[in-house]
Amino acid sequence: MLPAMLSRLFAPSAIAVIGASPDAGRIRGRLLQLLRKGGFAGPIYPVNPSYAEIDGLRCYKDVSAIGAPVDLAVVVIPAPHVPDSLLACARAGIPYAVVISSGFAEEGGAAAALQTRLKQIAQETGMRILGPNSEGFYNAVAGVAATFSPAVDAHAGDAPVIAGAGRIGVVAQSGGIGFSFLNRGRVLGLRFSSLITTGNEADLTAADCFWHLVSDDETAALLLFLETVRDAARFAEAARLAAQRGKRVVVVKVGHSEGGSRASASHTAAMTGWECAYRAAFRSLGMIPAQDPDEALAILAALTTSPPARGRRAGIITTSGGAGAWLADTLAAAGFSLPELSPGLQAEIRSYIPSYGSTRNPVDITAQAVHSGGMNRTIGLLTDSAEVDLIAVTFSAANDTRLSVQPEELAPLLARREKPVLFFSYTLPSPLARRGLAEAGAAIHTNLHALSAAAKALGSQVRVRAEPASAVARASESLLEKLRAHPGPWMEFFAKEVLAEWGIPIAPRILVRTKEELARAARRLGFPLAAKVQSPAILHKTDVGGVQLNIRTEAELEAAFAALMDKGRSVAGAALAGVLLEPMAPPGVEMIVGAVRDATFGPVVMLGAGGIAAELLQDTAYRLAPVDESEAMEMIAELANARLLAGYRGAPRADVVALARLTAALSAFAAACRNEVAEVELNPVLVHAEGQGVSVADALIVVDAKV
Amino acid sequence: MLPAMLSRLFAPSAIAVIGASPDAGRIRGRLLQLLRKGGFAGPIYPVNPSYAEIDGLRCYKDVSAIGAPVDLAVVVIPAPHVPDSLLACARAGIPYAVVISSGFAEEGGAAAALQTRLKQIAQETGMRILGPNSEGFYNAVAGVAATFSPAVDAHAGDAPVIAGAGRIGVVAQSGGIGFSFLNRGRVLGLRFSSLITTGNEADLTAADCFWHLVSDDETAALLLFLETVRDAARFAEAARLAAQRGKRVVVVKVGHSEGGSRASASHTAAMTGWECAYRAAFRSLGMIPAQDPDEALAILAALTTSPPARGRRAGIITTSGGAGAWLADTLAAAGFSLPELSPGLQAEIRSYIPSYGSTRNPVDITAQAVHSGGMNRTIGLLTDSAEVDLIAVTFSAANDTRLSVQPEELAPLLARREKPVLFFSYTLPSPLARRGLAEAGAAIHTNLHALSAAAKALGSQVRVRAEPASAVARASESLLEKLRAHPGPWMEFFAKEVLAEWGIPIAPRILVRTKEELARAARRLGFPLAAKVQSPAILHKTDVGGVQLNIRTEAELEAAFAALMDKGRSVAGAALAGVLLEPMAPPGVEMIVGAVRDATFGPVVMLGAGGIAAELLQDTAYRLAPVDESEAMEMIAELANARLLAGYRGAPRADVVALARLTAALSAFAAACRNEVAEVELNPVLVHAEGQGVSVADALIVVDAKV
Repeated sequence: MLPAMLSRLFAPSAIAVIGASPDAGRIRGRLLQLLRKGGFAGPIYPVNPSYAEIDGLRCYKDVSAIGAPVDLAVVVIPAPHVPDSLLACARAGIPYAVVISSGFAEEGGAAAALQTRLKQIAQETGMRILGPNSEGFYNAVAGVAATFSPAVDAHAGDAPVIAGAGRIGVVAQSGGIGFSFLNRGRVLGLRFSSLITTGNEADLTAADCFWHLVSDDETAALLLFLETVRDAARFAEAARLAAQRGKRVVVVKVGHSEGGSRASASHTAAMTGWECAYRAAFRSLGMIPAQDPDEALAILAALTTSPPARGRRAGIITTSGGAGAWLADTLAAAGFSLPELSPGLQAEIRSYIPSYGSTRNPVDITAQAVHSGGMNRTIGLLTDSAEVDLIAVTFSAANDTRLSVQPEELAPLLARREKPVLFFSYTLPSPLARRGLAEAGAAIHTNLHALSAAAKALGSQVRVRAEPASAVARASESLLEKLRAHPGPWMEFFAKEVLAEWGIPIAPRILVRTKEELARAARRLGFPLAAKVQSPAILHKTDVGGVQLNIRTEAELEAAFAALMDKGRSVAGAALAGVLLEPMAPPGVEMIVGAVRDATFGPVVMLGAGGIAAELLQDTAYRLAPVDESEAMEMIAELANARLLAGYRGAPRADVVALARLTAALSAFAAACRNEVAEVELNPVLVHAEGQGVSVADALIVVDAKV
Repeated sequence: MLPAMLSRLFAPSAIAVIGASPDAGRIRGRLLQLLRKGGFAGPIYPVNPSYAEIDGLRCYKDVSAIGAPVDLAVVVIPAPHVPDSLLACARAGIPYAVVISSGFAEEGGAAAALQTRLKQIAQETGMRILGPNSEGFYNAVAGVAATFSPAVDAHAGDAPVIAGAGRIGVVAQSGGIGFSFLNRGRVLGLRFSSLITTGNEADLTAADCFWHLVSDDETAALLLFLETVRDAARFAEAARLAAQRGKRVVVVKVGHSEGGSRASASHTAAMTGWECAYRAAFRSLGMIPAQDPDEALAILAALTTSPPARGRRAGIITTSGGAGAWLADTLAAAGFSLPELSPGLQAEIRSYIPSYGSTRNPVDITAQAVHSGGMNRTIGLLTDSAEVDLIAVTFSAANDTRLSVQPEELAPLLARREKPVLFFSYTLPSPLARRGLAEAGAAIHTNLHALSAAAKALGSQVRVRAEPASAVARASESLLEKLRAHPGPWMEFFAKEVLAEWGIPIAPRILVRTKEELARAARRLGFPLAAKVQSPAILHKTDVGGVQLNIRTEAELEAAFAALMDKGRSVAGAALAGVLLEPMAPPGVEMIVGAVRDATFGPVVMLGAGGIAAELLQDTAYRLAPVDESEAMEMIAELANARLLAGYRGAPRADVVALARLTAALSAFAAACRNEVAEVELNPVLVHAEGQGVSVADALIVVDAKV
């Protein structure tokens, strides 16, 4: 339903400009000017009681006077008048409005109430509102420039350089940054479909606009600039739809530095900052995060001009040894290998390059060979060869009278979309070179950092679960009731009971309160044993000396029990529940597996190196819960600790499959109990040798029922 | 001596061009053209038997025919003729030559021999030679364009935009990359002193040219592009001189991806890749490494336009909330804090910005306040305030008719050099904005990644030991002889003997071979004990089960001894030396301290997190050896593990001073014995609570006498 509806907003048949002015020095005047200049073919109705006519267009007293159907009202009047104006629009049957006016929630105080009023109007009238405090939007395909951004003006101005076949859709929560992508992208030769800035999002959110552009056939790839996500469910839906339709999404999320830290009982929550949830969401939803405008646009340039890379073998073509080495370092750091070319291929290249060139990889064809067409020829050879998956060319594109590549020969080569070809100029490209390469279908990169991100994006695969909601195992009502009955942090014994019930592999365990129970328990469990004091008042047992390990005899056990009960009484008093006995877990690689409920995205699952390394060195991986086993395997592969699990320094390979299964099961628990469980953590988890499973040494659940 | 000599090379009074040609389509023709166009004031003598005159200049048959003093011969003739030509120059009394010609070592084979001949000629005649295979040099101050690079041509072409007061000197081992800095730098408004490309370095090396530019009064900061360092001693000398003269040096080192790994007995050597030695050298010598051209030039733009930052508090000024948040994230990631401004300062800013602006930090003055001069005013307020150490402005500089800042007001503000002011434009700057900001003395950054590196560089201090050679403790001849007598890896007992003698704190220890010795040793050392099998044939004792810890009784000791001797005999046979007994070290934070001799830079000291973390997570710091205690403290501070040492999660603060002292002592040992010791490692080192020192649990020395 939504996509069709928003198409009328972003590609309207007729537009009213509420507050239009003939003064191009003011926002409201500039807006009308840009709208007309942008090439919009339908009728434009200026509305302003002060004028009878603006620049040859009849101007209306109010919307009711228009007397013809209008799809979109663009509102640029002082904030206090906006609500009445919107109500008038609704009465006139206008289904959409873009509120450019500022002076709402961004000011706080009484102005915030005005914004609440806008939200109400949307709800009461059914009118959908973009803004307020939006810089508007630009639909380049339909020629609708409903904005005052000068970027659109310049864009319309001179002949565009167009490299990519696909158009890019942009949704930005910042007007300035949103339109800056237009300004920067055109130099790279990028084409845009629509650029939407959402302002304060009183009604329509970035997620709504995101979904609209994913549904838009003119949009091949997307760029999101986010300060927050107000509607995580819609956002995830849109991302899944994008993955389904093969549209890649680059996302910039700002506001990290304001995050602060979570209040937490578990290490997982302490380690899962607010930004980790965004990281988890972007990973789980197959999005590509970017840190810098150049990086974001370089990735989009690569995605819209090149096919994906089938592997991670790069072939470099250069005209300078130093430039080739620099690019080689860059691609190696991005995870690409640089295989030496086969003797046959080298001999072929050698036939047309001078003796001081190099045929290995980087292939240094030298400036001399460039002049005799060597660049195109080498790109052709590497395109045809099965020896590399991605071709990267580094050269100087500064010359403004001569090109290093012949566009007319390069174009059909690139059009085959056999493998990606990235061009990097170590000098600043001349307009001639920009245009020439663009004609051939390529962008020229000028920043190695951005190029590296682009290559990585081409080499990465998107694997997004279509419907994770349906994959959520359901928790029984009795389990949920048990959880709800005990808000707060749970002591290990009860946490393990519930998790074992869920199917998580937990060793047999007995809670002991008396000496008599002790002997019986020891007989049932067998030595060596671990003994741990249990009380809801003691969360960090080790910190209070409440753990004894490797108990080997009955005498040792009795002494340990007595000591732990004493310790427990002195720390927890009447809240002492007893001592938990378990068989000692065999040694293994220490890991931590946990989940924490994020206010925006719901449960987020974390996998990390155990002990202090995870916290200090942040060797952690995050995803939205639940994950399946193969997603959990991907999380494991992301960790530096993966090398340890793979059998580092002669140690046996650890049972990563069991670890993945455990992670998937815990994530399913967190998802199924998302309303009850705020934090859940298995820490440490000992991963034993292949085939020998995992041991959950300690467990914690924090129940915080969302009513 | 050298600086004065090279000044005649790079600022000659008269130049001969050997192989000059009237054909501007060829390198030799273009060179002569550029040389004349560049503004060189002295006489130019073309030498080429084929012409009597070139473009109005008399052309000479050979150099002997010139009959006037010549300082520099620029040689552009086919490689095989270069040696004879150089000999002729030497006979004619020409002291310097730049050999542009290719066809030497870069080709291999017979051509390499030709390069050896050049080296001989330099040695035999005393002539100093730059190249061969050099793209020449450009001295912008003296107007000497001894190169065929088109970058110089364009540079001379239009009116330069000049932002920085100081000029930048460039030394590059790649001609293409070297001159690309000129091409890219001019857009930022950078001024250059000299740009030197060193080619194959048959005689003069990058280190020589580096030293020359450090000595050059016209050069305020330097940029080095390196593929290798051929002369580490000269290189280090030049870097120390630069630090002494307050000239910052940005360095790009390429070729990481070709490094491969070291053959090694110790973990230290396994972890200290070839690139780590460069990293160590750059850190020790106060240089700033850069990874990307934009990053290198952004750092130089910041260094030549701004004073250093006195602290790490940033104030951000923006005209867009989203842009401010993005820059805030960037600076926070670079280690800057963003303090909220004081109420007084906020009130002052509030007086001239609209209600929807923000006065906190980032300060969002809004586009409206920009038009009434709010940008300059806010920069002024933050410059005067004691609340921030660095000011960063993010705005749109795309407008080509109006500026957001008033250069004439900004200029005196920046000229006070009170604190750094960095400008970032989220749109691509118009030429008007570039020029306007440059007139005020500022560059406009367009890449956040590069801006972050620039801010970091402004906030970093250079502390380079002036004369580390003199700081090297001398090893006694008897110690050196002891080392030389036993090449190969040393077993722990002997390594500890030598290191204890050097003054490294090592616990008492006794090597035991018989049961009788065992009892006596136990009495002297006291329980609990550690026992370790000793043999030069057993390097990794734990791997063969050759270590027993926590031995508490005589009975346990006897059993352990018997077991270890058995184990030792079965693994090492006759090479079994006995069992090493030591008191058990108390627990502590595990670290690794080691040094490895690098072929280029000599001994490099490494400090890292102990156990597997160091290797897997690369939590390591490197410096050239020796370091003093304060340098060792800086190394500790670089580690993620520093938080653990500082008393993580309630643990007592560890004795970092003792760790620093140990690191300094070990580095001094490695430096003093640099000819004998290839690797030395203390692993693990247990760092106890503050005031309680460190324990060296194991030690390894690998002697590899460099005769």
